[in-house]
Amino acid sequence: MTRVSRRTLLTGGIGLAGIGVGAAAVGVGHEVSASTTDAPSTLPFFGEHQSGITTPMQSHVNFIGLDLVDPADHRVLQSILRMWSQDAANLTQGRPGFSDTEPELAGDPSRLSIAVGLGPGAFASPALASRRPGWLTPLPDFAIDRLRPEWGQTDLVVAVACDEPMTLAHTVRLVIAPVRTRTRVRWMQQGFHHGRNLFGQVDGTVQPDARRYDDLVWNDGREQPWMAGGTSLVLRRIAMNMDTWESLDRHGRELSMGRTLDNGAPLTGSHETDDPVFTATSGGIPVIPESSHIARAHRRTDREQFLRRPYSYDVPPSPGSGDTSDSGLIFAAYQRDPVVQYVPVQQRLSDHDALNEWTTPIGSAVYAMLPGPREYLGETLFA
Amino acid sequence: MTRVSRRTLLTGGIGLAGIGVGAAAVGVGHEVSASTTDAPSTLPFFGEHQSGITTPMQSHVNFIGLDLVDPADHRVLQSILRMWSQDAANLTQGRPGFSDTEPELAGDPSRLSIAVGLGPGAFASPALASRRPGWLTPLPDFAIDRLRPEWGQTDLVVAVACDEPMTLAHTVRLVIAPVRTRTRVRWMQQGFHHGRNLFGQVDGTVQPDARRYDDLVWNDGREQPWMAGGTSLVLRRIAMNMDTWESLDRHGRELSMGRTLDNGAPLTGSHETDDPVFTATSGGIPVIPESSHIARAHRRTDREQFLRRPYSYDVPPSPGSGDTSDSGLIFAAYQRDPVVQYVPVQQRLSDHDALNEWTTPIGSAVYAMLPGPREYLGETLFA
Repeated sequence: MTRVSRRTLLTGGIGLAGIGVGAAAVGVGHEVSASTTDAPSTLPFFGEHQSGITTPMQSHVNFIGLDLVDPADHRVLQSILRMWSQDAANLTQGRPGFSDTEPELAGDPSRLSIAVGLGPGAFASPALASRRPGWLTPLPDFAIDRLRPEWGQTDLVVAVACDEPMTLAHTVRLVIAPVRTRTRVRWMQQGFHHGRNLFGQVDGTVQPDARRYDDLVWNDGREQPWMAGGTSLVLRRIAMNMDTWESLDRHGRELSMGRTLDNGAPLTGSHETDDPVFTATSGGIPVIPESSHIARAHRRTDREQFLRRPYSYDVPPSPGSGDTSDSGLIFAAYQRDPVVQYVPVQQRLSDHDALNEWTTPIGSAVYAMLPGPREYLGETLFA
Repeated sequence: MTRVSRRTLLTGGIGLAGIGVGAAAVGVGHEVSASTTDAPSTLPFFGEHQSGITTPMQSHVNFIGLDLVDPADHRVLQSILRMWSQDAANLTQGRPGFSDTEPELAGDPSRLSIAVGLGPGAFASPALASRRPGWLTPLPDFAIDRLRPEWGQTDLVVAVACDEPMTLAHTVRLVIAPVRTRTRVRWMQQGFHHGRNLFGQVDGTVQPDARRYDDLVWNDGREQPWMAGGTSLVLRRIAMNMDTWESLDRHGRELSMGRTLDNGAPLTGSHETDDPVFTATSGGIPVIPESSHIARAHRRTDREQFLRRPYSYDVPPSPGSGDTSDSGLIFAAYQRDPVVQYVPVQQRLSDHDALNEWTTPIGSAVYAMLPGPREYLGETLFA
């Protein structure tokens, strides 16, 4: 078997990059507003914010949770972020990664985004300890939680998302392989987006007004200047018990959600985006039950708003478990400050939410999502 | 919580079916020839052959392997096949299943196909024993195999495929749930199709001429009249070792396959569909090595042809395994007679194939894929 030098291999890889670029749609330099396959197929990597957060949701996602082998050495973290940046700058634009041995799989970016966040453990080194945002701490214990350590907090998260599963698999490989001696992959959470969840419910209806992203989503750098343009991610893995849910009748399921199943309209309205009227009654009984999910989740103050990006998961049940499904929701919430914006809502849902009977949070983690890179991810943290 | 009767629920479900049909493209009654999202979105359920076999490959698949709780009772098998038929006849056309509690998830069939096959164990009842095709036996032991029981032969297989992961998840649920007391799910194999595999190779190039499907793919009923219009499926799960593969240089990888990586052309040609010239030499050395995959897989006789439908899989590695990936190929081969058409090729590959160094078969099973239904799947078996 002939062996060529690493240099030749890399040169070959770079030469081939042209094929990928030629085959892919040329990037537009700003986020696309449609999610159809006709839309431009690249999202920017560089900019004020990371792509993949306010981007219209891609159809496939893989959240990768990694721990640092040596969290005390902040230079290693910096190197990891530089390596990821180099590859992400290419892969998101349809070009192969630096040591990409399957460059042909890079030519169809399909709105690929690679967004990186840091967990509390990433600030373990003395050099970074003072740079941890105050809100980057474990969430309070919620009574409904049945958290499993295998889906818990990690030092790093990489949210890879795109519209093509092969592109996703290839990219995930290039995220993990170059850092394998410096990190340990704790979990991967693969999901897909449809607009409805596996309960058949229209999901992700309530969102902050895009004109208020600067206020509600993006960090302003007031507490930690290096975080300006970043945000926070609360990632919850919520198991959904299909068997018991399906034993409930249709009307009962609509009452538990507070929305119709056919188009997601609140029970007091006719369209998905109609504002629910929680004061409406019928025969003295609230049309939208106070215990319903939307009544409990509805914001009580202006600050209780966050970006919801729900992905469904459906993986084969563990062999021997006797379960017919292992499915649920990967619930990603983005907000400037999770303590102020997310936690009060989650606390209400934990205290009481009709849906709790069929849903169980089994994973939970919080991350500081980095600002968008000018040169490389995390550059302001190390400045 | 209000409870309505099961009858009301079902009526509601049927009423809602109209929404799904209205939203979905109307079926065309024959198989579509394109795999783009603009193509008609339904495939026929009824007909001479099951859809999903010669159909242009959908982007997502889930092969479900089930065992019968009581294989001695052939009436149970018949009931299972009737239930699946009833749901498949609706779901494939964008209508909810019979006891579908999430009817809204049925409205986007996205070229959904639900194809059913029987393993040897399905013929365990005295009434069916004489109806088992002679070729429906375990494959020979191949020296390269490292088969794991969790991916082994089952009594039944259901191949669910479509272009939309939520439709897939919903359909899989409706396949499993109604038969849960009568079957045990042994495995699910979720895959995706791209045209290249995770090694970056163009895959599935060599296929029988469509004009010869009647001869090479479809059963003619000569041995078992009830099988006329059916076929056989060999399902192999082949782990691919990404780490060692990627340590090989590009030229070495092309030599091991016998094709270029950029467009899949044989090393003696310039286009994917060029016929390889195994006699060509350069400096006295074969251009396509005799040990290469395509040299070994190339048919030696006219009968050694079968339909290749390779899907990739990429699932999170087992926690604690230390692996960076758990990925490979779900290789589905369809042919009239696996013993005559498939086994000789597989034997050659087992004896020697350069790719064996990086690939390991870990699952293997054979099924009699039922003829297409007039009224319900398996009707000729029970006639």
